[in-house]
Amino acid sequence: MPTVVVGYVPKPEGDAALDKAIEEARLRGADLVVVHSHRERGHEAEPDLADVRARLEQAGVEFDIRQLVRGFEAAEDLVSVAESSDADLIVIGLRRRTPVGKLILGSNAQRVLLDAHCPVLAVKA
Amino acid sequence: MPTVVVGYVPKPEGDAALDKAIEEARLRGADLVVVHSHRERGHEAEPDLADVRARLEQAGVEFDIRQLVRGFEAAEDLVSVAESSDADLIVIGLRRRTPVGKLILGSNAQRVLLDAHCPVLAVKA
Repeated sequence: MPTVVVGYVPKPEGDAALDKAIEEARLRGADLVVVHSHRERGHEAEPDLADVRARLEQAGVEFDIRQLVRGFEAAEDLVSVAESSDADLIVIGLRRRTPVGKLILGSNAQRVLLDAHCPVLAVKA
Repeated sequence: MPTVVVGYVPKPEGDAALDKAIEEARLRGADLVVVHSHRERGHEAEPDLADVRARLEQAGVEFDIRQLVRGFEAAEDLVSVAESSDADLIVIGLRRRTPVGKLILGSNAQRVLLDAHCPVLAVKA
């Protein structure tokens, strides 16, 4: 079964990535693994992923949500889940602009693009 | 008709991008636009794209090869062709390592990822 892995954050770029990942999973008849990483428990509130679950259920794709609370960077978690799932595709969201309006590619996005063992699809919010 | 645009260079990462773009065009029932840019005519030999054409013909996708000889950067050409074709997807190849073995994301790749108006699929050689 092909597998699509998506890095989810509760932000516009995370929503754009999730929508695109659902579309790609349907196109490929693939399972979808949604990865959400926190740096530390408690430091940041654990988001309510009920909305995400509802979107996935409505989309009719087979899915798995993994909330990772570890000391690693989000990019490392995503690449490692993709590798262990033998993923065919990773989907990531890019911020269109920094708060000061400058366009830059974040370090997490760069690491996923460079370290991934499979193609990476980058979408903007 | 959906459209996939791919940036082609006669290097391993360009071949990887072309192969993936053919696969994606078939999956989506899309036309494929292959963009190859030179900075200057004469400065760099114009590559023989007969092999590329043969691969595309054999793949059975509708395609168009555009050789651009202009003063712009390759990233600019690619994004501009994607925009004028109302592309659904841009496919680019990433070098896995620099000659000294360091992993970096080239400036052309960064510009395409940031400037593109559609999702960008990055593949490695």
